[in-house]
Amino acid sequence: MNELFGNVFTGCPSATQAEQFEDLLKLPNCRIERIVSAGQTTPSNQPYKQLEDEWVLILQGEAEVTLLEPKAVYRLTQGDHLFIPAGRKHLVTYTQAEPVTIWLAVFSGVSAGAR
Amino acid sequence: MNELFGNVFTGCPSATQAEQFEDLLKLPNCRIERIVSAGQTTPSNQPYKQLEDEWVLILQGEAEVTLLEPKAVYRLTQGDHLFIPAGRKHLVTYTQAEPVTIWLAVFSGVSAGAR
Repeated sequence: MNELFGNVFTGCPSATQAEQFEDLLKLPNCRIERIVSAGQTTPSNQPYKQLEDEWVLILQGEAEVTLLEPKAVYRLTQGDHLFIPAGRKHLVTYTQAEPVTIWLAVFSGVSAGAR
Repeated sequence: MNELFGNVFTGCPSATQAEQFEDLLKLPNCRIERIVSAGQTTPSNQPYKQLEDEWVLILQGEAEVTLLEPKAVYRLTQGDHLFIPAGRKHLVTYTQAEPVTIWLAVFSGVSAGAR
């Protein structure tokens, strides 16, 4: 059962040791996640490549996402959103540590609710 | 084709005359919308009742959503999010006008991308 109500800025876990991922909503074809980052980035030899479409929004902090093939660098600050189509390789190449970076991520596709 | 990049706080249309709705992303089973409200509310005899699940997040301003059957009132401020399951009757019973209220709304379900 999904919680009806919450706040994206409260109860943020510490991300000092590792990025923190938390489902806010999980439906059959759609999942909404809060991600808290504190300086973490993606290893350049391990880009993400997902089965689901992903849409991210920066709620607090700053980040940089690098899309690959072809390469395109997006510097993101509060309110900025980026659509990452399924199958598009990408790296998180910067996240602000202090204050932490809070992302909203919406995943859509047949496997989005399966995780 | 969906835009890759944007910012939810920029290019907000004036909502003085009417609430403003804009698709930020439209996928087969998922639609993400920005809503700008400036004091508008739902007529109490015309509650919303939708085929899609809806999840809303307040990005700026304040609002009140009243779920019906059974009645539950949610006062929402920045960062608050509320899940409104498909078929649940609801009313927007308050929106802050100055500064305007900016909502992110995620619709999910077979008809979400059809609008």
